[in-house]
Amino acid sequence: MKIDFQKSGGLVPAIIQDERSGDVLMLGFMNVDSLQETQRSGEVVFFSRSRKQLWKKGESSGHVLRVREIRVDCDADALLVRVEAVGPGVCHKGYWSCFFRAVEPGGGAKVIAERTFSPEAVYGSEKRQ
Amino acid sequence: MKIDFQKSGGLVPAIIQDERSGDVLMLGFMNVDSLQETQRSGEVVFFSRSRKQLWKKGESSGHVLRVREIRVDCDADALLVRVEAVGPGVCHKGYWSCFFRAVEPGGGAKVIAERTFSPEAVYGSEKRQ
Repeated sequence: MKIDFQKSGGLVPAIIQDERSGDVLMLGFMNVDSLQETQRSGEVVFFSRSRKQLWKKGESSGHVLRVREIRVDCDADALLVRVEAVGPGVCHKGYWSCFFRAVEPGGGAKVIAERTFSPEAVYGSEKRQ
Repeated sequence: MKIDFQKSGGLVPAIIQDERSGDVLMLGFMNVDSLQETQRSGEVVFFSRSRKQLWKKGESSGHVLRVREIRVDCDADALLVRVEAVGPGVCHKGYWSCFFRAVEPGGGAKVIAERTFSPEAVYGSEKRQ
């Protein structure tokens, strides 16, 4: 089974889902190397599109994502990574999930979750997740 | 709140999650028009990267995705669409979820779900989902 990395220029979207609650926590991208490193280490490693390098989730915060299972879709061009999320949340804005806002019909967005940690305390001036 | 469509060339990944079970059903892409049409109609409309046109999920199968909530992530470059999935499954291979295979350490993939419908009966020779 070959993952199709070509459709998005060497990357595939990787959905991160908390295994226990089913909550979708975030979406990142992986290239061949980051998927291999994720499988080797058992913790999620993305490819950062802005920094153009591998990026281990939790490298500065300690909020790593322990891999429980990796699933692939019918077209082999998207991944679903089921994880145990270590720490109070994955989002650098201080939330359990990066999807903490609902899009409203008029185009606005409404925060629908409570903060679970202080991003300043965890990250300081460091903005990496 | 502006969705950032530029990071992926006019598209954002849209994760489809069954509202009731929490199951992740599929991942598609949306451009500005497909998001607007999704919001207007209340049913999910993707942008097909292969056919380069809007693609209403369920247009041939009847397996439409009724929108319950649209969430956006911290960077506003990914969507989580929580839906009621009409019908026995979303996958054109005959499964409830497109993520019906687990990636194995050696590089293989193992089917981890049962078929919920016959794709031939639903789609015939038509391969659109």
